[in-house]
Amino acid sequence: MSLLNPQLAAFAAVLDEGSFDAAAQRLSLTPSAVSQRIKALEDRLGQVLILRRSPCEATPAGKRLLRSVQQLRLLEAETLQAFHVDADDAGAALASLAVNADSLATWFLAALADLHEQHQLLFDVRVEDQDHSTDLLRDGSVLGAITAIAQPVQGCVVKKLGVMRYLPIASPAFVKRHFPRGVDAASLAKAPMLVFNRKDELQWRFIHSVTRARLAPPMHYLPSSTAFVEGAALGLGWAMAPESMLEKPFAEGTLQSIAPKRWLDVPLYWQHWAIRSETLSWVTAALLQAARQGLR
Amino acid sequence: MSLLNPQLAAFAAVLDEGSFDAAAQRLSLTPSAVSQRIKALEDRLGQVLILRRSPCEATPAGKRLLRSVQQLRLLEAETLQAFHVDADDAGAALASLAVNADSLATWFLAALADLHEQHQLLFDVRVEDQDHSTDLLRDGSVLGAITAIAQPVQGCVVKKLGVMRYLPIASPAFVKRHFPRGVDAASLAKAPMLVFNRKDELQWRFIHSVTRARLAPPMHYLPSSTAFVEGAALGLGWAMAPESMLEKPFAEGTLQSIAPKRWLDVPLYWQHWAIRSETLSWVTAALLQAARQGLR
Repeated sequence: MSLLNPQLAAFAAVLDEGSFDAAAQRLSLTPSAVSQRIKALEDRLGQVLILRRSPCEATPAGKRLLRSVQQLRLLEAETLQAFHVDADDAGAALASLAVNADSLATWFLAALADLHEQHQLLFDVRVEDQDHSTDLLRDGSVLGAITAIAQPVQGCVVKKLGVMRYLPIASPAFVKRHFPRGVDAASLAKAPMLVFNRKDELQWRFIHSVTRARLAPPMHYLPSSTAFVEGAALGLGWAMAPESMLEKPFAEGTLQSIAPKRWLDVPLYWQHWAIRSETLSWVTAALLQAARQGLR
Repeated sequence: MSLLNPQLAAFAAVLDEGSFDAAAQRLSLTPSAVSQRIKALEDRLGQVLILRRSPCEATPAGKRLLRSVQQLRLLEAETLQAFHVDADDAGAALASLAVNADSLATWFLAALADLHEQHQLLFDVRVEDQDHSTDLLRDGSVLGAITAIAQPVQGCVVKKLGVMRYLPIASPAFVKRHFPRGVDAASLAKAPMLVFNRKDELQWRFIHSVTRARLAPPMHYLPSSTAFVEGAALGLGWAMAPESMLEKPFAEGTLQSIAPKRWLDVPLYWQHWAIRSETLSWVTAALLQAARQGLR
């Protein structure tokens, strides 16, 4: 059974699954029945809610509706569970969370495994830069986000998780070749640098902490946390990497700090919708505990 | 020096950097000079080329132009290098490549490290599903792509790289709990399953190889290759993972196959622009060699 009306259930299923066909399969309906329900909902609200493309996407109006529907679904799943009734909609209990790639590669998974073990929660994990995951919160795509932004998104509450420390690293051969006399404006201008993607400013922040000179070093873009660390070990460039990913490569001698007295501390926060939900309070408790162990 | 006209250089820099300000900084111009050049180019071509948002994006017309400009820049960089002249545009020699996450997590980095070591190439790596990276080729965002699609994109050539074998895996405790009598329709319908993202069909393909029944198992979405394998080891669910990521967890006993006689083979191809370029021939040779070692 579902507490959502059939139109809202169809709307949410299309956006979850990305197509009318897949939504129909999940709801055990024909695609044409799904389409009629969406159309009726759009007529009722007087707004186009879904862009019919591959995959289907919410319009701005659809995103506003989705945010409410996600909250309804979470409360619905909890309500039904309290009565020992399964929601018949397989996607209903998915907790959607945004996380930055480096947290996913380090402390975050332990919290998910705990929550799944203890409460059988299922997760829809979205990887976004810590600076940009609040967009997903704002448009209702996620229930909560690991973010670098302390300012709460409207309707959300924020808890501090701790600090992720980033060390400037490279392979020993790279250090010998590019930084034989240490790190300064001249060496940083020439040494190839790894950058996660266009939103990644950590390497630039490190450079600015060393020199006020405007540098244009050679760069690689490499958007994967583990590839970033492995790429540095293979000599592609220097990079800023989370200290918790470095224990083993430091011990094995495949990576070293290029400036042992320098690092960057990035505070991380857990922002989530301000609704009273058992699921959310479980998730919050598990994240705070995993962060205590994995962050400073 | 640059062989591109100043309007084209400004156009490419804005799309590379994502904003007029960052492009201006790279080209040592004022943002207003960059803006005037783009405007002049758009007037000349009679089309809007860049959507002024954050980050800036190419319009469809802009994407068509970008594809030509990228080819020009590659040939420009090689031409200048042959004359031992540096391109003054720091981004000029970036080789942009699309790769699926599992290749990036396994055999692909060795090729990049080789190319960087031997030819000082710099890379702009984009992570896309093997089924979707041809879109990036088509719109000119990348020079070449690791893809599951054998059919060449117009203007491109295709070479077979080999086969990535995926094994169905889970933790020993998970197998004991969910598959005590092996893998069948009943157990697969109940056991939580990891899925990379909405485009990932590998787990579904495995289920279809076992049963014709339409299942709706509980699912987590977890879009990171290493998190996928670690999540399985932590007991979040079963998953299809590349065999080359499994040697260590199999040896350490943190993961095992849930159906030792079953696997899926995914052929991978290298599609690249059909232009005569020294860089491209280096990249092709290095990818073929790394694939010989890392794929079947």
